[in-house]
Amino acid sequence: MSDFFKPISGMELPRFAGMPSFMRLPNMDFDHARIDDVHIGLIGVPWDSGTTNRPGPRHGPRQLRDASTMIRAQNGATRVRPFDLVNCADLGDVGPNPADIPDSMDRITAFYDRLKPHGITPLTAGGDHLTSLPVLRSLAKDAPVGMVHFDSHTDLYHSYFGGTMYTHGTPFRRAVEEGLLDPKRVVQIGIRGSTYDDEDTDFAESVGIRVIRIEEFFARGLQDVMAEAREIVGQEPTYVSYDIDFVDPTFAPGTGTPEVGGPNSFDALEVVRALDGLDIIGADLVEVSPPFDASGNTAFLGVSIMFELLCVMARHIAK
Amino acid sequence: MSDFFKPISGMELPRFAGMPSFMRLPNMDFDHARIDDVHIGLIGVPWDSGTTNRPGPRHGPRQLRDASTMIRAQNGATRVRPFDLVNCADLGDVGPNPADIPDSMDRITAFYDRLKPHGITPLTAGGDHLTSLPVLRSLAKDAPVGMVHFDSHTDLYHSYFGGTMYTHGTPFRRAVEEGLLDPKRVVQIGIRGSTYDDEDTDFAESVGIRVIRIEEFFARGLQDVMAEAREIVGQEPTYVSYDIDFVDPTFAPGTGTPEVGGPNSFDALEVVRALDGLDIIGADLVEVSPPFDASGNTAFLGVSIMFELLCVMARHIAK
Amino acid sequence: MSDFFKPISGMELPRFAGMPSFMRLPNMDFDHARIDDVHIGLIGVPWDSGTTNRPGPRHGPRQLRDASTMIRAQNGATRVRPFDLVNCADLGDVGPNPADIPDSMDRITAFYDRLKPHGITPLTAGGDHLTSLPVLRSLAKDAPVGMVHFDSHTDLYHSYFGGTMYTHGTPFRRAVEEGLLDPKRVVQIGIRGSTYDDEDTDFAESVGIRVIRIEEFFARGLQDVMAEAREIVGQEPTYVSYDIDFVDPTFAPGTGTPEVGGPNSFDALEVVRALDGLDIIGADLVEVSPPFDASGNTAFLGVSIMFELLCVMARHIAK
Amino acid sequence: MSDFFKPISGMELPRFAGMPSFMRLPNMDFDHARIDDVHIGLIGVPWDSGTTNRPGPRHGPRQLRDASTMIRAQNGATRVRPFDLVNCADLGDVGPNPADIPDSMDRITAFYDRLKPHGITPLTAGGDHLTSLPVLRSLAKDAPVGMVHFDSHTDLYHSYFGGTMYTHGTPFRRAVEEGLLDPKRVVQIGIRGSTYDDEDTDFAESVGIRVIRIEEFFARGLQDVMAEAREIVGQEPTYVSYDIDFVDPTFAPGTGTPEVGGPNSFDALEVVRALDGLDIIGADLVEVSPPFDASGNTAFLGVSIMFELLCVMARHIAK
Amino acid sequence: MSDFFKPISGMELPRFAGMPSFMRLPNMDFDHARIDDVHIGLIGVPWDSGTTNRPGPRHGPRQLRDASTMIRAQNGATRVRPFDLVNCADLGDVGPNPADIPDSMDRITAFYDRLKPHGITPLTAGGDHLTSLPVLRSLAKDAPVGMVHFDSHTDLYHSYFGGTMYTHGTPFRRAVEEGLLDPKRVVQIGIRGSTYDDEDTDFAESVGIRVIRIEEFFARGLQDVMAEAREIVGQEPTYVSYDIDFVDPTFAPGTGTPEVGGPNSFDALEVVRALDGLDIIGADLVEVSPPFDASGNTAFLGVSIMFELLCVMARHIAK
Amino acid sequence: MSDFFKPISGMELPRFAGMPSFMRLPNMDFDHARIDDVHIGLIGVPWDSGTTNRPGPRHGPRQLRDASTMIRAQNGATRVRPFDLVNCADLGDVGPNPADIPDSMDRITAFYDRLKPHGITPLTAGGDHLTSLPVLRSLAKDAPVGMVHFDSHTDLYHSYFGGTMYTHGTPFRRAVEEGLLDPKRVVQIGIRGSTYDDEDTDFAESVGIRVIRIEEFFARGLQDVMAEAREIVGQEPTYVSYDIDFVDPTFAPGTGTPEVGGPNSFDALEVVRALDGLDIIGADLVEVSPPFDASGNTAFLGVSIMFELLCVMARHIAK
Repeated sequence: MSDFFKPISGMELPRFAGMPSFMRLPNMDFDHARIDDVHIGLIGVPWDSGTTNRPGPRHGPRQLRDASTMIRAQNGATRVRPFDLVNCADLGDVGPNPADIPDSMDRITAFYDRLKPHGITPLTAGGDHLTSLPVLRSLAKDAPVGMVHFDSHTDLYHSYFGGTMYTHGTPFRRAVEEGLLDPKRVVQIGIRGSTYDDEDTDFAESVGIRVIRIEEFFARGLQDVMAEAREIVGQEPTYVSYDIDFVDPTFAPGTGTPEVGGPNSFDALEVVRALDGLDIIGADLVEVSPPFDASGNTAFLGVSIMFELLCVMARHIAK
Repeated sequence: MSDFFKPISGMELPRFAGMPSFMRLPNMDFDHARIDDVHIGLIGVPWDSGTTNRPGPRHGPRQLRDASTMIRAQNGATRVRPFDLVNCADLGDVGPNPADIPDSMDRITAFYDRLKPHGITPLTAGGDHLTSLPVLRSLAKDAPVGMVHFDSHTDLYHSYFGGTMYTHGTPFRRAVEEGLLDPKRVVQIGIRGSTYDDEDTDFAESVGIRVIRIEEFFARGLQDVMAEAREIVGQEPTYVSYDIDFVDPTFAPGTGTPEVGGPNSFDALEVVRALDGLDIIGADLVEVSPPFDASGNTAFLGVSIMFELLCVMARHIAK
Repeated sequence: MSDFFKPISGMELPRFAGMPSFMRLPNMDFDHARIDDVHIGLIGVPWDSGTTNRPGPRHGPRQLRDASTMIRAQNGATRVRPFDLVNCADLGDVGPNPADIPDSMDRITAFYDRLKPHGITPLTAGGDHLTSLPVLRSLAKDAPVGMVHFDSHTDLYHSYFGGTMYTHGTPFRRAVEEGLLDPKRVVQIGIRGSTYDDEDTDFAESVGIRVIRIEEFFARGLQDVMAEAREIVGQEPTYVSYDIDFVDPTFAPGTGTPEVGGPNSFDALEVVRALDGLDIIGADLVEVSPPFDASGNTAFLGVSIMFELLCVMARHIAK
Repeated sequence: MSDFFKPISGMELPRFAGMPSFMRLPNMDFDHARIDDVHIGLIGVPWDSGTTNRPGPRHGPRQLRDASTMIRAQNGATRVRPFDLVNCADLGDVGPNPADIPDSMDRITAFYDRLKPHGITPLTAGGDHLTSLPVLRSLAKDAPVGMVHFDSHTDLYHSYFGGTMYTHGTPFRRAVEEGLLDPKRVVQIGIRGSTYDDEDTDFAESVGIRVIRIEEFFARGLQDVMAEAREIVGQEPTYVSYDIDFVDPTFAPGTGTPEVGGPNSFDALEVVRALDGLDIIGADLVEVSPPFDASGNTAFLGVSIMFELLCVMARHIAK
Repeated sequence: MSDFFKPISGMELPRFAGMPSFMRLPNMDFDHARIDDVHIGLIGVPWDSGTTNRPGPRHGPRQLRDASTMIRAQNGATRVRPFDLVNCADLGDVGPNPADIPDSMDRITAFYDRLKPHGITPLTAGGDHLTSLPVLRSLAKDAPVGMVHFDSHTDLYHSYFGGTMYTHGTPFRRAVEEGLLDPKRVVQIGIRGSTYDDEDTDFAESVGIRVIRIEEFFARGLQDVMAEAREIVGQEPTYVSYDIDFVDPTFAPGTGTPEVGGPNSFDALEVVRALDGLDIIGADLVEVSPPFDASGNTAFLGVSIMFELLCVMARHIAK
Repeated sequence: MSDFFKPISGMELPRFAGMPSFMRLPNMDFDHARIDDVHIGLIGVPWDSGTTNRPGPRHGPRQLRDASTMIRAQNGATRVRPFDLVNCADLGDVGPNPADIPDSMDRITAFYDRLKPHGITPLTAGGDHLTSLPVLRSLAKDAPVGMVHFDSHTDLYHSYFGGTMYTHGTPFRRAVEEGLLDPKRVVQIGIRGSTYDDEDTDFAESVGIRVIRIEEFFARGLQDVMAEAREIVGQEPTYVSYDIDFVDPTFAPGTGTPEVGGPNSFDALEVVRALDGLDIIGADLVEVSPPFDASGNTAFLGVSIMFELLCVMARHIAK
């Protein structure tokens, strides 16, 4: 494999120098000569029109790219060197229409539809959680997929404000309804916080989605929970959706709807390492909201999580 | 006039104590027994779905209320005591639908339609600048009105993102098209910054809107410019729309689309004082974005401007 | 039970909209027609004149109210729906005199004396920790009460600055001396940090107060420690005083006298859940200092703790 | 004059190095061998118990010392080299009692009483504005003095909260009553903002204090106003009291009771330069509140003002 | 001219989307096929090893690029459309060696040496002010150039810390000594603040550099001063060096060695507009320090200044 | 032992008052009359020229001194009263040359060479991690020492940027090469994060340095790991180097090269307590970077760690 797809080292060019593409990877569009050599595409979706609470994830991809220049070539914990295993590239941002939700969803789905012909697996940086729906409309077009979902909310509500169907609190309700997710192969981990009522979890139960609340997560321990998660999704195609508010808001303050009492940053990484071996057909890291992330630490944790996702995806693809 | 409508003094209850209604006024809804005694209603519109750039004005009304508890009973410069002249009340917030622009506009217009039967003149705290459109749909329902518009942008663009008609960059284009504004009685003051092209100012010229750029404002002087502004709108019903980004972003950093090189905070107040004597049928202060206002200074300047607006409105009504 | 005492849902009115009363509850004073229907009153005491170190808790109640609009109707962990069990209301703030400590203490005690005739149990948002003393002067007027006290400091010192008896480091020394607390039914949990000397803990030992340092808390485990705490206070009337600096300052930076090495946010909630079943006659959450809480996360953790307190109080009252 | 009293240059020791005494001057107490050689003593009064609004000036002296290490040896505008003209020293802080106002005032007066025997003229860093009263009790013990007072408030109110006589809004009312100030030789410059009523200015008028509002300041121009100020105080002993909220809060956000629409930072310095030639027997810079000064810019402006004060004081003493 | 060199409009792609190159221009290196079509190259120099005070400008180029996505195609004040007049491109960053000053200077000079063969005029984003020296070593290799220098410091000192010759306080002393600048064609505008002594201005006088202090700038007025500046440099090749600390630190807090009392943001732009018609062979904007620019406003002012520089450079080149 | 070396209590002088020396200890230089009575000297090294990433530790000592005024006389956990056991003093800062690395290293070594004649053991506040090298050049001049090293990085790299040997990523490679460290008596704890490659750990292995990664640390538990650490260094002279980035960046955000997933603040203290009984001949706390520590919490954690170091050092010396 040539050096073209290798990030430049911080020992050659300081980390604060140079244009901040994701992990210092080559930035390319679909017209690039080497697009067919790409295995994993990192994509930004700067969009938060589905946010019913504090806005800001539209600024997520840019801040995540900035923070990502701190990432080096080798995973210290697992020793995986993803850029040696597969070719990765920064495919840029999907251009949304901040004042039109349906138009934006169409734009996102159309962008992801262009990946398949090139054989590219997407790793997405959101955007609010509604982002996952138009992405799944592309990735699960042919058949429903399983999902490992890290979050403090189920995002399974029916609607908001008297009938609004598309918000960041409803994407997976829609995805189940549209046949994009196989609910029996969906597990949600980290759910907590005060709730409106049981409408979302009643729905989960009715369709077979497994909800693991944070109290269970802490009581059983991370490894035990993740073993169950792996079993639920099995070896079939699986999507990973990681809402940064899964992590305790002290570790990840830059998000719009935080819930206190969540996992720390070590667990935040470990849950991803535990996905090793799954057939991940795409993943996202959503709800990083820079306006509420004064220190930039949420973004840095976010890209650290993305790097872990990239490592397990690369290992799977390289096999 | 009874004490019911008088804000409690900071010499009795410290400014940091108590629920933060606008200027410590009584908070009431349309069912309140004394609603018909209200002359001026302060209203929040926590809505920013029309924002094409950095979001946040949905949080404006709450932060403006908080900052407004620093306002005392008497205008130091003009010696007007508005709460002695007329009855003012905080009428609460219009509840928007953050994920549906047309629905939100309908909600806003419906709320303002309820003011007229009670004879209440509205002073609005936005919200992004699209807020002004549904407000004008109510206030100018019967006949077009004039407008004094402070801003660094004209907000006269035709559309965004390939045809989106309702954003915070288009409200006054729509208002002219819908016959809500009489363009010959509209003056825009403070326009500056880099621009896309001349589409907006060409439109202004074609319909007779007077655009006063910041260079002209500084060159001629505030009093001279404001004399022209008063002449343009005359003694007919006039709306005042004040975008906080009229002020230099150093004085008002908490806004989404700042343009450097604007007026300072003294001028920010003086331009309002110069409106004394006009027939103001409503006013708004928009685009205060708390997520970009770490110190809260923008909100405090915003309510200081609202207090000046209130003073000239009260003087006019009390006459 | 009517809807009057039910907070409006964030699915109807977005969380950032509307006046921020505690948990979106009705705001009422003692003259309100329905005051006798209130079971639990949420009260702010915006006062920090007893602070010997970094000031700011005078701003606590307002910021806590703001953050509290993020709280929903149901406790996710315990499934308690407090607003279905009892009637709760925001009774506003006690107006303090920031430049006169004795006057302020009298005002606070007088305010709380008005609760008993209406049968209202108070949940207080401070204010610095001296707040607890004038509250206890009202609640324990007739007989000493027990206390579960979460804090990193004992607040049992005799005096400061050569004889000053009333500061936020002395309230419980005074409360024992004044016969408001039964020291044998008092337990202090989380004590840590560097100390002046052993004067406070010597006093604790001499009167029978049980002090559980953080090292013991971590070594024995939360559930074991809380079982002992429940045993110490028994089924007699008990006050709960929660200093936000009990929590590690990374999770709760917005406080004046932080001590590193404390519990995380999950434990911060769990210790309250472990109080279920006690006869809680009042509770407070103190020392939230907004000027040192740039992100607002301390306030959000604070109201999350208040919600847990409310849930155990509501369960007890509803029995 | 020896080098003992000369600040070390930033070209020898970087400005961020070393203990931050005021302007890198020697730090000494009254027992120091060279105390009688000191002409001007810089003194901190870390005290804000008189603050009725947002607290914080207790932290002022420390932050001002930190920022003051940016000050070099020569005034760029006036070319005065104060440390060549007179001996200056940092005399440390007066230790206040944050929970006892009368005790603190006594401590402050006692500290300043120790200056006269050594012939030291004080330049004070507050502290809130109540600081000026106990300082004047020492400096004006024998005869009333004149005062040039820069502020956005008159601080001439009678009392707060139903009779509290000592707050940061009353020091100069008390000083006139106590015969410390000759009201006919007092001028207040920069007054603005909303006001409670005319109680303070009525008092000013009744005793002969000259109040120059900000509108007059801008209309007449700085030099004209300052000429009048010099005439009012004449060549008799004069105190200078500089509240940082004289300056527009955009330039000086770190203060508790800001009022928008004030002078910029250039004017903030120029008004002090215009005091050259007066018989200044003491000066203070008060109300810098670090918790509201995230950037530290207010403190830096504050010490820049202190340096200008020092230069005019040094020129007068050296004559 | 094709569309290749035209920035994409914010009306097509929202400003927060996409990789942040300078002003959304194409990013290219010297191997790019169209490098010879470039007229003006925007270049980052992320380097601050010469900083003797507060560090941070190494992060300047990245933050300036981010802020620059707010710039649109047309200058509102002058109506210049630079991207229609000439081809502009973002040429990336020079990779410095943060731990080796001479090595870094060599790298910078080498990078700029590559511009001349392609006929590219550089517009540089620093970096601390030492950046200008290695740039001038390339641009003025053949003959000394004139310079318009905006700053609050002369940067003409001989050395620091007992003989260190290369710091951000010495670049123009070195440039004169090395024959890169013709001192009789150098003007420094905005000088202010406390100073060590007269060593720098004595040197200026001895070689014929014209120093215009801020007091003179305000007294004579901007247009008069700039007319003199234009006369001093004449029609010969001229470099423009703009230190962001020329502007008052309230408008530009993000810098390492601020001096209060400077020009506002309107003047900050106007001084550049007054350079129209000069033969500018290169320009830089230096000393933007993101760690001290919490709001990002300094960077936005910085790129607004860069856009003004670009407009006058483009007008000159297009003639 | 006299009171001269005892910090003044916060119950006498509020913690925000007075000049901020380390832990309120007497500040003295080598000429002080009582220098020979000092057992432990606290020293600042405000220097970060070796930083290859985000700068700022040059501001560390000042902020650490400020935060250290919160430290009281007694260790709450271990009950050690260090100031009763030995004499401690603040020996001020080493004056570095920010623009010359070799010169700065010589200055530091020279300063530490002056300690030995007076029998002073140093506790250093950095500065970036290159600081440890010139300190070790003095302390280990005669014989190599052992080291307990807390960090998320090994700092064992050979060189950066094509051959630069002295950066904050290379100090311990140099120290081994220079014979200052006995690699078989060196243990590194907490290593994590993405890495360039295995160059550093290969070197560690080749010379016998024991590297304990964070995964091992968490898996085995703190006490077990620390027992091994004590065994590795044994009873011979040992240096302790504590990089604040050992701690998770949520607890210690103010640092230049954070790595997520580290220990919390309780563990941060416990690892030091576990060093009790070792022959510590010097210790440092480095890499606290105030520009990235908006809340000051990192500095407060830093001095809390320094206090723990001081306690174990004092216990050893007093034996």
